[in-house]
Formats: sequence, C-alpha cells, structure tokens
Amino acid sequence: MAIPVSPLATALPHLPPIAGVRFGAMAAGIRYKGRTDLVMAEFAPGTTVAGVFTRNLCPGAPVDWCRAALPHGSARGLVVNAGNANVFTGRVGAEAAKATAEAAAGLIGAKPAEVFIGSTGVIGEQLPVERITTALPALHATLTPDGWEAAARGIMTTDTFPKGATRVAKIGGVPVRISGIAKGSGMIAPDMATMLCFIATDAKIPSTALQRLLSRGVQTSFNCTTVDSDTSTSDTVLLFATGQAGNPEVPAEGGAMLRDFTLKLNEILLDLALQVIRDGEGAQKLVQINVSGAVSGPSAKRVAMAIANSPLVKTAIAGEDANWGRIVMAVGKAGEPADRDRLSVSVGGVWMAREGGVVPGYDEAPVVAHMKGREIVIDVDLGLKNGRATVWTCDLTHGYIDINGSYRS
Amino acid sequence: MAIPVSPLATALPHLPPIAGVRFGAMAAGIRYKGRTDLVMAEFAPGTTVAGVFTRNLCPGAPVDWCRAALPHGSARGLVVNAGNANVFTGRVGAEAAKATAEAAAGLIGAKPAEVFIGSTGVIGEQLPVERITTALPALHATLTPDGWEAAARGIMTTDTFPKGATRVAKIGGVPVRISGIAKGSGMIAPDMATMLCFIATDAKIPSTALQRLLSRGVQTSFNCTTVDSDTSTSDTVLLFATGQAGNPEVPAEGGAMLRDFTLKLNEILLDLALQVIRDGEGAQKLVQINVSGAVSGPSAKRVAMAIANSPLVKTAIAGEDANWGRIVMAVGKAGEPADRDRLSVSVGGVWMAREGGVVPGYDEAPVVAHMKGREIVIDVDLGLKNGRATVWTCDLTHGYIDINGSYRS
Repeated sequence: MAIPVSPLATALPHLPPIAGVRFGAMAAGIRYKGRTDLVMAEFAPGTTVAGVFTRNLCPGAPVDWCRAALPHGSARGLVVNAGNANVFTGRVGAEAAKATAEAAAGLIGAKPAEVFIGSTGVIGEQLPVERITTALPALHATLTPDGWEAAARGIMTTDTFPKGATRVAKIGGVPVRISGIAKGSGMIAPDMATMLCFIATDAKIPSTALQRLLSRGVQTSFNCTTVDSDTSTSDTVLLFATGQAGNPEVPAEGGAMLRDFTLKLNEILLDLALQVIRDGEGAQKLVQINVSGAVSGPSAKRVAMAIANSPLVKTAIAGEDANWGRIVMAVGKAGEPADRDRLSVSVGGVWMAREGGVVPGYDEAPVVAHMKGREIVIDVDLGLKNGRATVWTCDLTHGYIDINGSYRS
Repeated sequence: MAIPVSPLATALPHLPPIAGVRFGAMAAGIRYKGRTDLVMAEFAPGTTVAGVFTRNLCPGAPVDWCRAALPHGSARGLVVNAGNANVFTGRVGAEAAKATAEAAAGLIGAKPAEVFIGSTGVIGEQLPVERITTALPALHATLTPDGWEAAARGIMTTDTFPKGATRVAKIGGVPVRISGIAKGSGMIAPDMATMLCFIATDAKIPSTALQRLLSRGVQTSFNCTTVDSDTSTSDTVLLFATGQAGNPEVPAEGGAMLRDFTLKLNEILLDLALQVIRDGEGAQKLVQINVSGAVSGPSAKRVAMAIANSPLVKTAIAGEDANWGRIVMAVGKAGEPADRDRLSVSVGGVWMAREGGVVPGYDEAPVVAHMKGREIVIDVDLGLKNGRATVWTCDLTHGYIDINGSYRS
C-alpha cells in the first residue's frame, strides 16, 4: 500500500553544518530495500548530551542503553536504524544494542557508553545486528558536516516527509546554531509507531544545564502532541552540544545566560513536534486545542488531551463538523474540575456555546469555512481559574484505519 | 447513510410479563419519523429502585433528575425518549425534565420524584418537551405487561438491533423474574453515543440492598466494556423491583438470601453490556481481554482497558492481525506495574510471547484462523501477582469513521 505524502507536509529546511557534528546514512538492508536505513553521527570530543525517553514501561533495548549511558553526560557517537525497533527482544536484543555501540565506539575511538542508539520499526523481531556492525566501517568513512538531510531521510520508517528545523541563538553575545531532525507517525506497516528526535548545537553547555532545558522543553512541545494516544516503546529525544561555538562558559545550572538559547531550542522542539503531527497517520487536518480557565495548568492539559484523544471529536473534525457537543463530552470525561454551567466552546474563533448552553443565533458560516481548512483551532474556557494549556493533534480518518488495519506481511 | 445490522447481532429473547410492570411505546415525532421514540413504564405501588449513572462531569438534565430522585428509593414511572439527549441545555433543559416527570406523575397518581427519565440523542438542542407531555396521556392508556419488546425498540437511537435479557432467580425458594433492556453504540448521526439500560424484577427487595447489588454488578459488566473510550453524558442503568413475587422479606443489607438473585442479575448486566458492544459503531469483531498476574484487580483492569482502548490494537484486530507487539505497547503505556521480561501474551489460546520474548516457532495457523473469526480472545499474563480482570471491546473499522465522520445534518 503506497501512502501519499501528507497534505499537511512542510518542506525540509536547509540544515547547515554544525561544528563538531558529522552525519552519514547508508542502505544496510535491515528491512527496507532500495533506501537508506542506517544513520551514524560522530561528535567532537567534549560533546555533552541530554535525553528524554518514552514513559512506556516496556521500552526497547536502545532506550535501556541510552538511559544507562546518559548519566555520564558525554557523547561521541550516534547510531540509528530504521525498520526494526529492537523492542521485546530479551537478552539478545540488549546484546545487539551493546554490540552496535561497541562497533561504533571502536571506529570513533571512544567508550561504548559515549555512543547513543535509536531503533524504530517492527517490534518483537531480533535485530539483524551483524548487518549494522558490518556496515558501520564504510558508513563511518563517509561522515560529513553536510550529512543532515541524508540523516533526516535515513531515520524515516513510514514517514511521508523528512522532518527538520534549525535556529541561531546567542549565548553571551556569541551566535550558536541549533538543528534537529525527527521521524515519526506515518505508518505503513504496523508496529512502526515510534518517534525519534535528534538535536545538535555547537554551543558549549554543561550536560546538567542541557538536561534541564530539554526536560522542560519537551513538556510544552512533544508532550503536548498526540496522534492516537498510543505511547511508543521507542520514543527518544537526544540533544548534543559539541562546544565548538566559542561561547562564554555556561554554569552547570544554566540560568539567565541561556534565555535566548532556551527560546530557540523550544521553537525547534515545537516545530519538530508539529511536523510529526502533520505526518500523523491518515492526517488531513492539524488541530490546535487551547484550554483556559482551568484550576491549574496540569488540569488544563489533561482536559485538552481528553479532547485531543477523543475518537468522537477527531472523527467529527475529519467530517468537517464543528461538533461542540462532543467537545463538551470530552471535557466531562477528563475527570478534571469542570462546571457544565460555566463551560464555553469556540471553534475557529466563534463561540458556539457559552456558560453551559448554545449561543443562540451564532454565525455558522465562518465556522463551516474554518472546518473545511487544514488547520483547526478549538478554544475551551472552563470559567474556573487561570490554568491554561495548548495541545495539538490531527483528525481521525479512513487513512488511519487503512494504515493500521493492514496485515504486517 | 443506512447502517446494516451488526454482524455480531443477537436475537431479542422473548421477554415475558413481570408482575407490577407495564410498558408502552409510541411515535411522538421528537426527531425521527415513522418509528416509536417515546417509551413509558408504570410500576406497582411499593416498587423500589436503584440506579447508576455516567461519571461524565457534564451530565444531561435527565441524569441530574434521576440522581436527585434516587435517594427516595421509590419508583412508580419511567419515561424515555430517543433522538434528543437534553444535554447542555441549561435551565430550560432542567425544566423540560421536570415537566416530563410531572406529566407522567399526574397520569399515574404518583409524586414527580417517583418518575425516572432517560433521554438520548443529539446534544445541545432544546428538548421539544411539549411533544412528550402531549403524547403521554395516549401512551399511558396503552401500557401493557406485554410491552417489553416495544420498549426495547422504542429506546433505540441508531442501534442496529434491540437488546434484552431475562433470567429466573430464587429468593428463599420463591422464583422471581428479572428482565432488562438496553440501547447504545450504533451511531448514525453524531452525538448519539449514549447507553441506557432498564431492568425490572418482581422480587421484593429493599432499595438499599438493590442499590448495593447494582453498584457492584456494573463494575464487572458495563464498566468493563468500551467501544471508543468516550464516556457519554447520558449513561444510565436503572433497576426496579416491584415486590409482586411473594418472596420472603429481604433485609436492607441484602446478604446471603440474594446469592442466586445476584448471580442472575449479574448475568443480565453482562449479557446486555455485551449486546451493546456487539452493536459498537462499525464493530466486526467482539474482543475479550483477560489480564492475569497483575499486582491487584484494579491494576489488571487498567491494563486491560489500556489494551481495549488502544487504536493500534483495535485496528490490528480489524485487520485480522494478531499483532502482539501492539499489545505489549498498550501494557507498557497503562502506567501500571509491569515487567517487560515477565510479560506473556496469548491470542486465541496460543502463547506468542512468553516472559519478555517471542515464543520461537509457535504455531501461527490456529492464531490466523482465530483472528478471522467474530470473537477474539486475548490473554495477557503480567507474571507479578494474582490480580485479574476481563474486559470487552470491539474492533476499530472503517465503519466507525463512516458513522462518526459524517455531517450531523
């Protein structure tokens, strides 16, 4: 089954070199034929690293490996394969992750714990690790500062477009570059529901400060998006800082000096997260849900996520129906403080329901026009306190069933 | 759009009269044309009542009415309409519920608080209550002990088949009958996702004992089923006991005397709950999920519900793919204690994954045959302690998108 490119796709921006980062990709025949499926990066000595991983309690062996390596705070390499997730593969899977890291470390001249690993693809099949270790020497020989686009394409599984973002920030007046690539959510064969994101900067930032920025940044970007409420066993976001930009020393706790860097990093995280949603399985519309008036921020987010994950809301949007009754239902099922008689709902900026009842004679024409567009905005005001949150999702269409209801074979 | 009868449909059993219960149905033109859409019941003086309602925090006016009436413990009438849920209709909606109860109470010669109300259908439109109050006198004149089937049909919205169940139990050696009807889950126009269930018995049981039985009974029946994780604003289960069977006095706390009655009541609750799932939107397969080895019963149920609500698991079942990797993912995302390396998964009785890895060379043929059937059984053993739970769902198919993605108009 050929999946057409998402109608919400964005063009891959030019991703210029970042000092201290060399990328490459090659076809290692792990599962796909006629395309690259193995990506490697080498980072300059002194590169610091931060990471966040899936909260799924049945994570893949690569996630286990990265979690164990992260406390060292130092990174020299990255190896990513597409087509096999190395998840639920037991002791053999853990050994495959170790063998991959050891092979790359040998080529780079680093410790295995300085090599990070990402795998996505089918679950429960043994990773053909010898195809990776056999391919790595040739791949290592091709690494180049211009390899970002090749890497963005090489990590795709059933994505319909490559995903990347880049920004320039200033630290103590010195410009530093941040670039990231991501994959995820366009599935053609089942078991491919995984999200990977790799970001690198030439800034010099201690790993403790880096980890704090990343952990906070994902809360308002990746962790505010959902395609289908199913949490992958492989989700990984890694941030590498090569320290080549010559910026002034950043203290371990980060602080005010990183204000602009934080801003730009958060922009990249949100940009990449929305690119993943734009490639959501079967997505025809990008949906932004703003909840205000909740008793707290976390409460607002849980209400927003209940709306974003409601199959009835998502199918209504696919049908271009501004069905505010289903939004009310989703608010009510979230289990968060809400008062039916203070609840207001707006679609495309038009308030259709106010304080517990339909707005008599509201203008339907702009709502109908808004629902026919590609980007839908829903506002919900709970009318209680000042808690706010924004989350993003896509609609639920026949494409989702087509993609996920087909046989694995 | 005409929705065909669910391939999982069961035939409505004969529902014989129950002493002290008279039912009737008529076409009141509330929303539908050419079919009954208003149902009424009258119960003998002395009838006790128990009820459980949606936990959605934005409930409909009829749910508010029933919740307020229930503590009196006494019931003389029931009025149910199809086509309009009287949800999110503000003060006017509350007045419509009161007017309905008052009109029925006047005809029966009872207090309004002894009349219970159920409404399902579109959300956010004012209930045309005068059509109900105008029709009630004629409807009341037609009530008959043989009206069960008419009632089962009259409460349907977009159900594709009527739902009912009946059993005989013994209390102190005296036979009593329990019968119930339900509606729900076959949706053609949006906003109809609502579940109603009405059960009556001729047994004489105090309302406190009745409430205890019902509250417990729904935990292992209705509350263990899910079509799409969306909780309706109208869900209602009411149990009426007319006291006409001549059984010995039952103490307020119930107790051992009600053992057989409890057994048969629970059978009816589960039977009706599964009929609702069999009529799930777009359902092609009924799915039973058994989780064992959890740290507790509630933990097992949350894991089972995470599997049952996973769009990726449900689409895989629709595609007749025994995709145990997605089951592992759903176990891991449930957030309950689980150890990947002790987890085992079986489909159709064949263990495909054992203690953290695929079972080498397991026989795929019986699994493939099982997946082609109408009733799918998934067993998950967490391998931790003795917590168990069983839940039921249906698959997620193009039919769900067809039904819920169409315009309301």
